[in-house]
Formats: sequence, C-alpha cells, structure tokens
Amino acid sequence: MRPLIISFILFLLFFNSSGQSRKIIRIPDIPGYITLKCDFHMHTIFSDGTVWPTVRVEEAWREGLDGISITDHIEYRPHSKDVEADHNRSFDIAEPLAKSLNVLLIKGAEITRNMPPGHFNALFIRNANLLDREDVFDALREARDQGAFITWNHPGWKAQQPDTTLWWNEHTRLLNNNMLHGIEVFNYNEFYPEAIDWARDKKLTILANTDIHEPIGMDYNVAGEHRPMTLVFSKSRTEGGIREALFSRRTVAYFNNTLVGRAGLMEPLFFASLQITPSPGLLRNGETRKIELLNRSDVDYELELVQPGVGFDATSSLVVKAHRVTVIELSGNSDEVSSMSELKVFYRVKNMMLNSNDNLVVTLTIPNV
Amino acid sequence: MRPLIISFILFLLFFNSSGQSRKIIRIPDIPGYITLKCDFHMHTIFSDGTVWPTVRVEEAWREGLDGISITDHIEYRPHSKDVEADHNRSFDIAEPLAKSLNVLLIKGAEITRNMPPGHFNALFIRNANLLDREDVFDALREARDQGAFITWNHPGWKAQQPDTTLWWNEHTRLLNNNMLHGIEVFNYNEFYPEAIDWARDKKLTILANTDIHEPIGMDYNVAGEHRPMTLVFSKSRTEGGIREALFSRRTVAYFNNTLVGRAGLMEPLFFASLQITPSPGLLRNGETRKIELLNRSDVDYELELVQPGVGFDATSSLVVKAHRVTVIELSGNSDEVSSMSELKVFYRVKNMMLNSNDNLVVTLTIPNV
Amino acid sequence: MRPLIISFILFLLFFNSSGQSRKIIRIPDIPGYITLKCDFHMHTIFSDGTVWPTVRVEEAWREGLDGISITDHIEYRPHSKDVEADHNRSFDIAEPLAKSLNVLLIKGAEITRNMPPGHFNALFIRNANLLDREDVFDALREARDQGAFITWNHPGWKAQQPDTTLWWNEHTRLLNNNMLHGIEVFNYNEFYPEAIDWARDKKLTILANTDIHEPIGMDYNVAGEHRPMTLVFSKSRTEGGIREALFSRRTVAYFNNTLVGRAGLMEPLFFASLQITPSPGLLRNGETRKIELLNRSDVDYELELVQPGVGFDATSSLVVKAHRVTVIELSGNSDEVSSMSELKVFYRVKNMMLNSNDNLVVTLTIPNV
Amino acid sequence: MRPLIISFILFLLFFNSSGQSRKIIRIPDIPGYITLKCDFHMHTIFSDGTVWPTVRVEEAWREGLDGISITDHIEYRPHSKDVEADHNRSFDIAEPLAKSLNVLLIKGAEITRNMPPGHFNALFIRNANLLDREDVFDALREARDQGAFITWNHPGWKAQQPDTTLWWNEHTRLLNNNMLHGIEVFNYNEFYPEAIDWARDKKLTILANTDIHEPIGMDYNVAGEHRPMTLVFSKSRTEGGIREALFSRRTVAYFNNTLVGRAGLMEPLFFASLQITPSPGLLRNGETRKIELLNRSDVDYELELVQPGVGFDATSSLVVKAHRVTVIELSGNSDEVSSMSELKVFYRVKNMMLNSNDNLVVTLTIPNV
Repeated sequence: MRPLIISFILFLLFFNSSGQSRKIIRIPDIPGYITLKCDFHMHTIFSDGTVWPTVRVEEAWREGLDGISITDHIEYRPHSKDVEADHNRSFDIAEPLAKSLNVLLIKGAEITRNMPPGHFNALFIRNANLLDREDVFDALREARDQGAFITWNHPGWKAQQPDTTLWWNEHTRLLNNNMLHGIEVFNYNEFYPEAIDWARDKKLTILANTDIHEPIGMDYNVAGEHRPMTLVFSKSRTEGGIREALFSRRTVAYFNNTLVGRAGLMEPLFFASLQITPSPGLLRNGETRKIELLNRSDVDYELELVQPGVGFDATSSLVVKAHRVTVIELSGNSDEVSSMSELKVFYRVKNMMLNSNDNLVVTLTIPNV
Repeated sequence: MRPLIISFILFLLFFNSSGQSRKIIRIPDIPGYITLKCDFHMHTIFSDGTVWPTVRVEEAWREGLDGISITDHIEYRPHSKDVEADHNRSFDIAEPLAKSLNVLLIKGAEITRNMPPGHFNALFIRNANLLDREDVFDALREARDQGAFITWNHPGWKAQQPDTTLWWNEHTRLLNNNMLHGIEVFNYNEFYPEAIDWARDKKLTILANTDIHEPIGMDYNVAGEHRPMTLVFSKSRTEGGIREALFSRRTVAYFNNTLVGRAGLMEPLFFASLQITPSPGLLRNGETRKIELLNRSDVDYELELVQPGVGFDATSSLVVKAHRVTVIELSGNSDEVSSMSELKVFYRVKNMMLNSNDNLVVTLTIPNV
Repeated sequence: MRPLIISFILFLLFFNSSGQSRKIIRIPDIPGYITLKCDFHMHTIFSDGTVWPTVRVEEAWREGLDGISITDHIEYRPHSKDVEADHNRSFDIAEPLAKSLNVLLIKGAEITRNMPPGHFNALFIRNANLLDREDVFDALREARDQGAFITWNHPGWKAQQPDTTLWWNEHTRLLNNNMLHGIEVFNYNEFYPEAIDWARDKKLTILANTDIHEPIGMDYNVAGEHRPMTLVFSKSRTEGGIREALFSRRTVAYFNNTLVGRAGLMEPLFFASLQITPSPGLLRNGETRKIELLNRSDVDYELELVQPGVGFDATSSLVVKAHRVTVIELSGNSDEVSSMSELKVFYRVKNMMLNSNDNLVVTLTIPNV
Repeated sequence: MRPLIISFILFLLFFNSSGQSRKIIRIPDIPGYITLKCDFHMHTIFSDGTVWPTVRVEEAWREGLDGISITDHIEYRPHSKDVEADHNRSFDIAEPLAKSLNVLLIKGAEITRNMPPGHFNALFIRNANLLDREDVFDALREARDQGAFITWNHPGWKAQQPDTTLWWNEHTRLLNNNMLHGIEVFNYNEFYPEAIDWARDKKLTILANTDIHEPIGMDYNVAGEHRPMTLVFSKSRTEGGIREALFSRRTVAYFNNTLVGRAGLMEPLFFASLQITPSPGLLRNGETRKIELLNRSDVDYELELVQPGVGFDATSSLVVKAHRVTVIELSGNSDEVSSMSELKVFYRVKNMMLNSNDNLVVTLTIPNV
C-alpha cells in the first residue's frame, strides 16, 4: 500500500506546480526591438464567447503571450438573456488579473457588420459603449477619434466573401479617412494570401489572431501546435510600445510554423534565431565542409537552395528544426573554390512569406580560409 | 511558394477534423454491466465557474465521458452582478447539446455550507430552485424527497477540515435519514483515504469527480493524464441505469492511474482488461515459461508478487502497461513443479485499492501440461 | 532527502518494465485471414549493417512485428576485415532468440547487382551460401530452386535508376522464368508509384520494407511514426502461412499512414477498422443525422466525399483518426430523402491507393427508418 | 490521388532532415567553465555489445553529447567466434567519424574481474592491448602508467555485491597506489548512494555512465527521459580539458532529473539555469509579491522551503519546470517585513544531492524596496 500513497504525493507535487507555470515562446528579439507575442482578437461570454474574461488573461499568461485584446462584439450578444452589462465590462473584469500577471491588456471591441465592409477591431479605445452606432462609418469614426488602431478582420471569411476575396470601395473609403490601419492574414485556422499583398500595397499592418470563442485548449490542442499570433517588434514591453509598433507596421504574422511580413523584419528574425558555425578551414575541390545551424527559436525553418555557389554545391533542401543543430554540407566542385575568400550560399526560406508569391531569401556568408 | 500553400491545406484538413473527434476511454465492460465513465461535479458561470454550460458538455464529449452532472452552487454565485438566472438555468442551457451529442446530462446542484456538514451534491433532482433553503437539513430533505442521490463532497478538504478528516454527528444524522448516499474519495487533485473506509463501513457509494471550475484543459493538461472520474457499472447507457447503479454502489473511483473500489468490481475489471497467454508446455525444474499479458485498457497495472509459487519463482514486480504486451517469467526451482497440473501466481495490484490499507490481490492460474 | 530515493525507486519500476514490454500494432484481421505485420528486408554487421543479428529480432518483438527476414548482402560485406562467417551465420545467430520471443524469422539473403537487374531478396531459402554465384541469373535460379519467394528491391532507387524508373528486359526474363514474385513499393523512406502498376499488370506481390542498416530507432524515431511494413493476410501465424500468402499476393504495403494494395483486401481492412453507428431515425428534408465512426485501428483514414447522396449532403472531407470517434453529418436537402429506405454515401479514401492513379472508394450504407 | 503524393513529399522533407539533426542538451555553463556532457562507459560488438563502434559516435552526436569513451571489455569477448580483432580496434573504427562529427572520443577499455576489486574503466589510455594481464593489479598499474584516469564501475552491482555495497581492502590498495580516481554513482539504471559518500571522503571523481550494450534507443526511449551522463566542468571543449577536469574532480552526475555532486559546482549550476525576476516594490504585512523563475535548463528543479523568512511566508513546495516560468509567492505576515532591505528565502533542492543524506540548499535574495 505504501507505494501508492507515495506515488500520489509525488504526482501532486507536479500537478500543483503545473498550474502555476508559464510556457516560454522562444522567438528572439531583433536588433533595436523587443519581440512581443500578441493576440488581438478574442471573445468572452459578454458577446458570443463561452468563457469568463479572466480566462483569456490566464490563458495568455500560461501560453507565454505578452499582450492581448478582448474584442467582444458590439452588435452581437447572444447571451444577453442571462448576461447583462455594458460594452466595457469584459475589459473591466479582466484588467485586475492582467495587471497582477503582467499581461498587457489592450482595451478593444469588434464592430460587426455585413460585407461590405465586414468586421473590424478597434484597439486602444477608451469607451466601447460609444461605438454602438447605427452607421458603421459613424462607429469607426468614433473609434478613430478615440485614437484606435483599426483592423479589418478575416477579410476572406467564406461567410462574407463566399466566392472571391474582394477589396471593396468601402475599404478604400476607410483607408482614405484614416479608419483602417491593419488587416488579418491569419484568423483562427484561416489564411488570406490576398491580404498580404493588400498590406504591402496599401501600407497596412499585418496581423495574425485567434478570434477564439471557446476555451483556447479546445481549438489548439495538438502537441507542438501554436495558436496564431502577431509578433510585435516594440521599443518596450508596454501598451504604448505596442501601439507605436502597430501604427509603424512593425509586425510579423505567425501561425502553423509560417511567418508573414516584410523582409526588413524577417531577415533579422531569421538570423537572430540561429547560431551559425562553419567548420574551420579552406574548402577545396573534391572536399567538403560543414556548417552547423543551431536554432534557438521555436520555428522550424524550411530552406531550399536557390542557386549553387561558385565552385561548390550545398545541401539542396533541409529543415532547420527548432532547438536542434542541423548541418549543411558544402562540397567543392571546381578548383576555383579554394581561391575565394568567402563562400556565399543562398536559401529560400519556404515558411517565411513576403507576399502571396515570394519568400524571403537569405544569404549565408562563410569565411573560406 | 507552392509548398507553403500545400502544407497549409493539409494542415487545415487535420485541424478541422480534430475539432470534431472524440477520445475513447478504454476501460472495459465487466460481465453483466456496461462501464460508464462519469464526472458528477462541475461548475459554470452560473455559480463560481468560468465557462458557459455548453462547454461542460462539449468537454465531456471530446474526452469520451458517458455522463456528467453540472452542480452549480445554490448558495454561492459570485458572478451575480452580471449573470442573473434561476438555479435550473445551467441545466436548461446545456441540455439540448447533451441530447445532440448523446452525453447523459444529470440534473444536479451543490448545497454549499460550512462544516459540519460541508458541501453536498444532489443528483437527479427535478427543481434546483427548491433547494434554496435556510437550513441545510431542509435543503437536503427537499433533495431526498425529489429522489436525489446525495453525495458528501471533498470530505477531507483542508479549508473545511484543516487538521484531521472527521466524520461528524451531522453525517450520522444524514445517513440515518437517507440523506447521504455517496462520498468523494478523489476530488480535483485531492485524495481522502479515510473516505474509502467510511464508504465500506457505512455502505456509501464511492465517487471520483473533478469539481472543475476552469476550462478542463487548464487543470488536466499533461500528456497521458486523465481527470478524476467515477466508473459506473450500469445495466444500460441511460440516466436511469446510472441512477440504479449509484444507489446499488456499483462504482469504482479512477484517478491518476489509481482505482478504488470493492473487490467484487475491481477483480472482473482487472481480468477484463487483460488477455493472458501462457507459453505452452510443462514447467520443469531449471526451466522457464513465459506468460504474455496483453493489456487492452488505458490503465497501467502495477503488480507485486505476493508469494512465490510452489516449486517455481515468478517475476517479482512489473508494470503491465496500457496497450502493450508485458511478459511474466516463471522459473522452476524444484522437481515438484512438473507434477502440478496448474500453476497459481499471486500478485498484489498496487494501484487497485480496496480500502486505506489493502490492495486487490489477483490470482493468475496457468495450466501446466 | 527521502523523496529523492522514493522517486528513483518508482522510476526504476517503470524503467525496468518498459524494457520487457511489446507494442501492439492495431491493424485488424479481415474475414478469413489473420493480418501479420512483417518486414522482409534488413541488414546486420554480417553485411553492411551496424547491429548484431539478435538486435533485429529484439526490435521486431518490441515494435509488435509478427515476422521478419534478415537479408544480408551476398556480394557486399564491408566489415569482412573484422567479421568472418558464412552467409547463413546471421540467421543462425538470430534464430534462438526469434524462437524464444515467438517472432517468425524467415531465412533470406539479398542478391546485390548493378542495374539491370538490380537488387533482389530471396526469402524462405535453405542455404544462403549457394547463392554466391558469378552470374546473377544463376544466383536467382538457385534461389528459385530452393523454393524462394523472390522480390525486386527498391526498383526506383535513384542510385540505380537516376532519371526514370524503368522495367528492363531482364525483369521480363526473370518474370517469365518464375524468378520474380514480389516488388517493393516502399523501401526505407522511398516510394515507387510505378511499382504499384507493375504489380497489378504483372501479378507481383506488393511489399513495404525498411532495408534498415542502423538501429531501427535511429531512422524511425518521431512520435507516432511507424516503419514501412508489409501486411500479410495469412491463414495462420506461421512461416508457412506467410509463404502461402506471399505467393498468393495477399499483401498490403503500409507506410507513413498510407496503404497500397488491391481493393479486395483493402475494403475489408477499412471496414474491419471501423465501428459505424448511425444515429437512429429517419432523415428528412432540412434535418440532420449523424454517423459515428469509431476507429479501432492505428490508421488515420482520410476521406473525401465522392458525390452527394440523393436528397442529402454529407461532410465533404474528414480524417477518421486512429482510436477516436469521428462524426459524419448527413443533412437532408430535398423531400425525396425521407422516402428512401437506406442512404448511401460514397467516400474516396485518400490514403488507400489501388494503383498510381486511383484510390479505394468505400460506400457507407445507412438504414433510413 | 494528388494529396497523397504531396503529403508524402512533405513527409520526406521532414524525415530526411531529422536524420541529420542534433539534439541540444540545455545544461548551462558555470562561471569559469564550459559544461561538457559525457558518457564514459559503453560497449560494441568488439566485446559484448550489439552495435558497430560508429553507432556509439552517431548516437552521441544525435543526443548532443560532447564526449564519450568506448570501453570494451578486455577479458570478456563473447562474439570472438565471428569477430576477431585486437583491443584497440573499436577505437580505431570509431575515430574518423568522431573527428568528422566533432565528438570527443576518449580511448578506453574495461578491466573486468570478479569482486574484489570488480570492474574498472581506464580512460585516456594509449594501447589497450597492454592491459591484457593475468593479474588485475598488473593491468591497472599498466593503465596508470599510460596516464589513465581509472574508475570503479557500478560499485553496488547486485551480481557482484549481492547483499551490501562494500568498500574492500583491495580498493584501499588501489587508492593508495594512484590506481583509482573516479567512481560511478549512476550506471545504466542503477544508483549507488554509498558511492557518493566514498567519493566525498576519499576524494574520488563522481561519474554517471550508461554502460550501454544495446542500441541506445532500446534502453532510454521514454519521451523526456535522458540517459545517465557525467557533466564535466572543463576549461575547454577538448580531450585535454576533460582529462584535467576529471583529475580535478569537477563533475556532476546527472540522471533521471537528479544531480549529484559538490555544492561548489551545483550551486552555480542552479543559478546559471535560472533567471530570477522579483516583482518590483516593497513587501508589506498582509500583501504579496511574486518572484518569477525562468528556467532555461532541461532540469526540473524540485524545491522545498527550508524555513519561512523573517516576517513573511513563501510557497512551500514547487517544481521549477524546464523551459517554463514558475512563480513563487511571498506574503508578508508581520509589520517587521517592510523594514527589511532584502528578503532571503531558503529552499532545499530535492533533486540535487550533496551526499547520501543531504541536498543542496539555495538562498534566493530579493531586494525589498
């Protein structure tokens, strides 16, 4: 009988502690900026979600997020028979726990209309109740006037854009009136490649959010899986830092091991993730050298050789797995190689997208002495 | 760019389907009874929980439970500023989904008082509002008169029994008045060994429940871990079947790979879990024979040899792992062994408890020819 | 200090037992046949492998295989400076352990030549030394005359067929002389779609083998992954049963959650894997009914609706995950549906291939009353 | 059909790359030293192991080890009927791969005798053949004269010390003649607490080794499990660095999440593993403050409060899980606490052993302003 009791006691030790611990999302900072992991779109029972607002904060803390926004629908509140409160209530309930856990909680709401123009989040608002307006443009103008950062949500959602994913005149009007600043390229489990190109052409900030309604573990529960999140490259870990970064378009969308953003942010992110160690020595014709890539991030980088180097071949395709060392082999194939002072290898990063057609291409430069 | 799109499409196929699938808890039926997996204690935002009632049904379906009861507190409703409803409301909201998913939803409520006598669940009630009575005995009498099965919850909870786990005169009074039928030996992550002995001596039904307040995945999230559940040995997969089985005390409490119950239920459960295949032939002095144990259940059975057999030794301690084949070796150590027509091996099952001091002992009988 | 010791003791209990337990590969039997899981291609230090022959038997037992063949190269023995033995030696060393563990060990060898005709395994041979012949046809004739089942190994291996995967005149000659009976469609991590069509057209037996040289855990080590194996539908779990089944072409190749074989074997395998439970009742226009698919096998079946039924729609694509319950929804879309006595739903099983272009299509027939 | 091909191609990308990647064991360096992860005891087919020598190097590289020693038995070579070579052969075969993969391969051999004195590894030898001597003391003297670091292996192995774990006169003789320098406290899955105290009293170096005979994945295959290893605190990642560190007793034995060694090494290891961040502010009576412990190592540190602080309570027991953030709560319980300039909290680290009876105690010092 003894061992049973003992086993149970040991178990409890682990059980209890697991309740109080926080995952670490290992996406590195880049030069000049802190990389904040954020989810700016989620619901509670105060609109059509199924959890109390504190759950969103607790989930964020446990999963290692830095910042979130609860964005309950203004216009859609199916639990109103049992739940009665104004539009600021979910924020007010969540705020004390967010402060205590040091999760940055950004006050938000979702303006929820038919297409066009569809659904919009207003982030950094002061009073959600004032967004409850008959006309959608009035609501968005109010948000803008409160200083909100406004995002077009799930622009390719089949329920609103069943056949093609269109940019409507209404969106141009919003853009021209400073009432549209960002766009989701990932929402829940969906992906909108068109939105990447719009973001590039119209200078919108790219976002990836969950739009979660259920407890988070119900929808993202496969081992190794992570929920969609917006990587925000911020000058500080503060609400103000996030706001400045969003308005400056310093974000990368991250979901399902895929990163979407501008080369100016993704290239430093790639190199900050890796420690690159070439084996010493001169590469000669007929010989091989190794490059060790130690990946300190949670991302598996999928590389494909763009073109062979001058005088040597290199591993043509590889996955640089998270938290492992992966090896690239260079093999000299002409005498010319030994006379070069450095070797340049060009890889396409297949899970880093610049737009709907192009991937980031990185250059590994190896001294050859 | 192509591979990214492809990869994402494949991912979605898996992602979506995972949302619609249900785990199977592999605990076998025993002769004469269906083994139902149940959790009779949980909360929603209608008392001090943090989820909408439908979440409890969805969680139960996904995890493979057959039956649950939502047991919101009658006397403790901290969200009442925002949530206003009568005591039957959480059942009423959850019921249609339960019907659709074929989860047996038992109407319940928790009568919540200081110790003595503490907290009690009333299961199979008709109207929870009538349990809202000044005097705890009046409330429990009302429950009894509605035909309720009444359980004493977390009898050793430190908040109510800080130093020792006591049986009070009030509990004797309840017992004598048919107002107490069951007792939790596991609640959330706690274990009350005293309760096993009380159950045996006072003919109470043994239960293991979660008493979950948060989304279930927040508290039971380690791979391979399972939440506490009550195994109900029922004549049918119906609410009536569960009720009859509970009043007849045909339950085993199951948590953390530990089973607690009566030998008459646990022995058939043990043997229904295993397919036992001895290697053919006669065991002789100096030779060995193997017994293969194929475990078709989710339980890892932990065995310890009670005594060596007459004329042979056997593996002294082993874990018969879930969904694997484990081997016991018998080795003859006297000439006597070859003259026996069958070999009997006695093992203590260290994770099957009969009471606070004894484990189930099983006998493996192997023909010796 | 105590807890450390205790923790360690508990650990040892688990550690030790794991060394003696065997995985179960849950692929069901089909009517009339036992489904044996086999790997007919592997190497040891007696050719160019890196393990002692007993390791292959131990690995097979642990992973749940029923039968294996060690097929060391006749012509390629790079360790011969240190290891000296005849061609039967690896079988002779492995045989006693195979008997003890009840793994069916089939005597084999690999005849190893340039293309054409390439590499061939001879299974069920009596004396491997006699296969050491100058001319490849002499070697294969000797194998045939020993009663061997002869397989063409990795027919699309890039090292031997760099540009296209060809069937050579030499293979026709072998076929016509009863010196070629089977062909690998999976080898190690490779897949040869052409070989499926050749197998169909020339009546060859389909195989999936590892061709493993290193310890098995070095090459197949991802959680949930399984090595290539040949499913043999045999009348008995004996060497003779396997031989009869191979010559009768009753095999399915299984790797990476993909099954390749004839419809006559794969359709019963699909239905033996699933327990299909429709919700009771009549489907009417505008209503829905559910079908629960309980998958008792290790295979995730990937289904795609081939065509909508008459008068109803059905879930268009789903993954029926291993050891879970997955739900198909039928929804009536015309009044006609309620007058049909049964509903037929047609799904393409995307991970069951009949040839290089076609998948198995299964019909689910649901009573509609 | 398309998706199958696509799925397979994606799979291969991952499959292939996994073969070329290396795990990282995240045990930090400590001030002044690099922490090398080493296993100094393993076998190949050149004694009684079951793998070719290159397998040991490949396994070490994949698992992230820095250094290994192949220590085939001098006196026990059961495969000699088939394998014939001198005692240096396993090193000679393994050496080129070790160089290529940058694994530090230390030449060794195991002198294998009855108790007393038992089995001994000689590391850093020049010629293993010269250790093949009739008398065990002659063999060990030869090893010493070659400059070997000599370890007593598995001192409490039941086959040699069935009832009690004894230190014999022979060991004193070896110690006095500079023929004994280290001792295993972990071997394979065994633990010898007595050896820790002998190491302390007789100034022996502590080691943890696998003594692996089978492919490593056969014996250490549970997710999250790691094999026994000796942490060597070295001035450089070189063979000479390891040798200097071993003779200077700068090692910690590591197995099953347990560390054994001297306080002077384990305390810096503990603090190098953690980033400790107290929440800002002054702790007052009746208030609480949090300390976040970010654990960057693979070790789960198990902490137990030794004594409450002056004027405050702290979390009494917790597990600081690997690669997570865990929180300690301090709560003021007297007015005195707010007048202290720093708060000291004392924890026993239950999985860091100094000797058979004592654990490391660490002090967390938190500014209180």
